[in-house]
Amino acid sequence: MSGKQLHLNAFLMSVGHHEAAWRLPESDPYAHTDINYYVELARTAERGKLDSIFFADSPVLMGDPGRRPSGKLEPTVILTAVAVQTSRIGLIATASTSYNDPYNLARRFSSVDWVSNGRVGWNIVTTAGADAARNFGLDDTPDHQLRYEKAAEFVDVATKLWDSWDDDAIVADKGLGIHTDASKVRKIGHHGEFFKVDGPLNVPRSPQGYPVLVQAGSSEDGKNFAARYAEAVFTAQQTLEDGKAFYTDLKQRAVALGRDPETIKILPGIVPVIGDTEEQARELDAELERLISPEYARRQLAAHFKLPIEQLDLDSELPEDLPTEDEIQGAKSRFTLIVNLARRERLTLRQLIGRLGGGRGHRTFAGTPEQVADTIEHWFREGAADGFNIMPAVLPSGLERFVDQVVPILQQRGLFRTEYTETTLRGHYGLDRPANQYDTADALVVAR
Amino acid sequence: MSGKQLHLNAFLMSVGHHEAAWRLPESDPYAHTDINYYVELARTAERGKLDSIFFADSPVLMGDPGRRPSGKLEPTVILTAVAVQTSRIGLIATASTSYNDPYNLARRFSSVDWVSNGRVGWNIVTTAGADAARNFGLDDTPDHQLRYEKAAEFVDVATKLWDSWDDDAIVADKGLGIHTDASKVRKIGHHGEFFKVDGPLNVPRSPQGYPVLVQAGSSEDGKNFAARYAEAVFTAQQTLEDGKAFYTDLKQRAVALGRDPETIKILPGIVPVIGDTEEQARELDAELERLISPEYARRQLAAHFKLPIEQLDLDSELPEDLPTEDEIQGAKSRFTLIVNLARRERLTLRQLIGRLGGGRGHRTFAGTPEQVADTIEHWFREGAADGFNIMPAVLPSGLERFVDQVVPILQQRGLFRTEYTETTLRGHYGLDRPANQYDTADALVVAR
Repeated sequence: MSGKQLHLNAFLMSVGHHEAAWRLPESDPYAHTDINYYVELARTAERGKLDSIFFADSPVLMGDPGRRPSGKLEPTVILTAVAVQTSRIGLIATASTSYNDPYNLARRFSSVDWVSNGRVGWNIVTTAGADAARNFGLDDTPDHQLRYEKAAEFVDVATKLWDSWDDDAIVADKGLGIHTDASKVRKIGHHGEFFKVDGPLNVPRSPQGYPVLVQAGSSEDGKNFAARYAEAVFTAQQTLEDGKAFYTDLKQRAVALGRDPETIKILPGIVPVIGDTEEQARELDAELERLISPEYARRQLAAHFKLPIEQLDLDSELPEDLPTEDEIQGAKSRFTLIVNLARRERLTLRQLIGRLGGGRGHRTFAGTPEQVADTIEHWFREGAADGFNIMPAVLPSGLERFVDQVVPILQQRGLFRTEYTETTLRGHYGLDRPANQYDTADALVVAR
Repeated sequence: MSGKQLHLNAFLMSVGHHEAAWRLPESDPYAHTDINYYVELARTAERGKLDSIFFADSPVLMGDPGRRPSGKLEPTVILTAVAVQTSRIGLIATASTSYNDPYNLARRFSSVDWVSNGRVGWNIVTTAGADAARNFGLDDTPDHQLRYEKAAEFVDVATKLWDSWDDDAIVADKGLGIHTDASKVRKIGHHGEFFKVDGPLNVPRSPQGYPVLVQAGSSEDGKNFAARYAEAVFTAQQTLEDGKAFYTDLKQRAVALGRDPETIKILPGIVPVIGDTEEQARELDAELERLISPEYARRQLAAHFKLPIEQLDLDSELPEDLPTEDEIQGAKSRFTLIVNLARRERLTLRQLIGRLGGGRGHRTFAGTPEQVADTIEHWFREGAADGFNIMPAVLPSGLERFVDQVVPILQQRGLFRTEYTETTLRGHYGLDRPANQYDTADALVVAR
């Protein structure tokens, strides 16, 4: 194996990313609360030597409960259970900076990093939507920019907490009766605009130092945040051209901040619908589209566009008069992507719903394993991606097909590992273990 | 097996409850961040058919890092990892109502209940101490009574969230394309003094409906809270007389609120130091006492009593002039218990430290397995306990001895189960699955 290597993350969602996947005969509609189901998916990803698995999250019941399996287990809980039944696969959980306390969150991720021996990643989100805000004492979602400012301070606090113990703080001197060298455990004394946190963390520094920091927003605020903090970026890009522009832009922003562009891995989402033949793939794709109940999506899009539902006709194109990205408070870049997709391909609402049903704005691609591998290689070689966020339309079969049929092709082409060479998620992504930001000499002794 | 049965919970703390346990040759001073260590302890408890294991918690680095293993994995993370590697043992985690959001906490416990197939319990604490407050933007700990008022509302919100899904909400009608009956999933619309939470929860109602609610404060506020909400109570009682008085008092308070006294199980803590002979037990006890470094405890007690450290002489009794329970903001009942113990037995500070080193106020008992079984049976038959919170001074050996040597005696006496007859923690404790507080007819449809 030589040359630059692909990174592959499996983005897992109940019985698949396609909203109608649960209606297929193979799907277990109760799988989303069954931990053994998730463990099996993780083992499949590990069999494929993938870098990681990933769960999205929002602290709110998303969407219409009738539409698809909704409500699920909290991602760090899923990944903890997975951690002790796997040995190599990386484990990335989404958690919100708007609706968590930094102390609790830093502690939980550090704990999962210990349990997994260094395999955890944190997808940092600011959480859009009034519905989520209303679960946390607010009437509406905080302003987009404010959320990102808070997120930046949140990450600063979290990294300080993760660094509040030196790696060698535990001395375990049984004879002298000194378990930990108190001079190597420090208060952080953070007093910022949004948070006041004294520290130290109550977990020793974890195997990776701290989790791999992941980010997925592609708005201006999101890209600036990613350029500064993210070590891996999940993004939705519909065309190779857009993908290259995003890739180049984000790497340049990181370089402008003094970062090595190799320390930020860009992974566009792809929803592969895989068949043994092109025809079989197209049939599965068509079958899934037939199973969509368009009324659920019509209701959701009307709310998203802030339009009365009557103004959205299933067999017409989108109305001319839609809000601008500036008027949207959450998922700004996704909004623009959806509108552009509809306008570019002149889709009726029904057609748009079909396209979104699979990937919600991510690129859907129906084809043979060879064709899926081709498109992955093409984007990778053209400089649009360091790897991909694989979003199977149907689970578990879509992941199994990817692992058993696409991964071997990528391996044969020398693009993807045939065995794990590292044990941590940082190792899989080729990222260094972060240095501790505190010099031991500067440590404040924990005085009591 | 007939007659009333004991309940036994194993209260686990790193390498044992005795502060010097980590200095014994058998102890691994790195065990507190090793998940396999906790899994093995849980399996030992399960081998003994115990009701449950339990972890205390506070979102702060407790005590002096030099003194003993400090910092640990977050308890719900530990118990999730344990859940998937055990099948029957109940899993109780402490979590604070002062430093969590009800939505996040309700969701996490519901998730662990799913992962464990109905084996989770929540030890509800209000968290004393300015150090913890300073990790969450506050300068000092909120007032004791205020903390309990907030805790009560917190539990109300959590139970509403847990009941926000009917048990039969998921209909999974693939033909009609209806996954969940939206009329059986409801907003809770909670607008209280401390919390505003809209709901519904984003996790379907879990196997137990909700976790077993556990409580451990023994102040007036604590007892009133327990009488209203707790299904199991952990308590520190030094004498049989005090134990009986507490037991009777708490059961009466529960009855006065209209509860069946059988629905609140009272489990005093006991720190058994077990030897094959009395002499061996006393030797282990003495060895542990010798390994205590009294300066750590002296510093802690000075802070606790709000005295300059010079006023605490290791070889004198406690000063006459100590604050009253009213002047203490946290762990009120524990404060009084410690002072009473010192006064009653006229202990020097050094002796008091020796006594506290093992159980921090819980009853320490050194003896043979037969003697430990005798004292357990005695308290149980005398109406001081529904069971015990077993706090091994040294782990894993103290738990192994209890399981292999004490449990069989209790089983032979017909006091304790020889096999699990139930699969859930509620089942082990003889508690019913709670009814859903919402009538389906009253459900608010989740409208979007």
